[in-house]
Amino acid sequence: MENIISNENVDILKVENAKKIIIDLQNELMSCLKDGCGPFLAAIYDSNNNLIAKCVNSVVKENCSNNHAEMNTIKLVQEKLKTYDLAPFNFKMYITAEPCMMCLGAIMWSGIKEIYYSVSSEDVEKITGFDEGFKPKWLEEFKKRGITVYGNIEADLGKNVLQEYVRLGNTIYKPSR
Amino acid sequence: MENIISNENVDILKVENAKKIIIDLQNELMSCLKDGCGPFLAAIYDSNNNLIAKCVNSVVKENCSNNHAEMNTIKLVQEKLKTYDLAPFNFKMYITAEPCMMCLGAIMWSGIKEIYYSVSSEDVEKITGFDEGFKPKWLEEFKKRGITVYGNIEADLGKNVLQEYVRLGNTIYKPSR
Repeated sequence: MENIISNENVDILKVENAKKIIIDLQNELMSCLKDGCGPFLAAIYDSNNNLIAKCVNSVVKENCSNNHAEMNTIKLVQEKLKTYDLAPFNFKMYITAEPCMMCLGAIMWSGIKEIYYSVSSEDVEKITGFDEGFKPKWLEEFKKRGITVYGNIEADLGKNVLQEYVRLGNTIYKPSR
Repeated sequence: MENIISNENVDILKVENAKKIIIDLQNELMSCLKDGCGPFLAAIYDSNNNLIAKCVNSVVKENCSNNHAEMNTIKLVQEKLKTYDLAPFNFKMYITAEPCMMCLGAIMWSGIKEIYYSVSSEDVEKITGFDEGFKPKWLEEFKKRGITVYGNIEADLGKNVLQEYVRLGNTIYKPSR
């Protein structure tokens, strides 16, 4: 078993389910890197494991630094359901990497109740050079707000995808300041 | 002089200029509260003090919890200029309140180089009940990334606007978890 981290007592069934979903997300992401997409993918599922929406990061393609995978997915689902409050739906988000500071905020405000991520921000920064922000003790802060977190799920697979993005010479979008 | 906070040695000329802009923003915001807008407004200016874009928070109106004033303004300007990197433009952002955690992230990724805000998050939370997130020592983190911050500009005026929003019974949008 990998070195899973969580802000609750680890539930093996949740981890096993998340592994399947995250393996699929990482494989899908890997297959679209050559088109310049990603390198992050997020998906929202309902409590019966039905896929509700899935979006890649579109910062470069859509010329907007807000457009991380998590932001795009939240926006798509809220617009579809015509509500800024997803809490009544008990949705879960699966993400190919730990959310950056902006996306942590967005997840808190969205009403999503569980998140599962693959590669840690520390590894994202090491591999790609992206800045993920500052977010000390965020698992505790999420717990305070009733949001369950699991991380490091199939992280080796995720690190391969990020390494491939870098190897392909795809854009490490960041402000030029 | 108010109790201005900054992550550089306070430049009185910058504060005086920001006061004028923030007074205008607070007055504009106050005048649209009866239509349910706000209660936050952000504007991007260039280094010659030309207004580039100005947006209110549209979480309720557009059914999306991402749509804070800062996010809307960044998106509008980046799409207009067709770039995810505003750094070469030396833009400044003026905001009627201290940015929440999501918006701090978004500002960092946008390439905006200076921000000026009015009401502190502590006062926003006290007056309205909004959750602004966790962002310890963010002025230092912004300084590390070369982003200048000034806060508490015309804060009393800003607090009046927020109190009026609450008095009118307008929505305190938040997840119902």
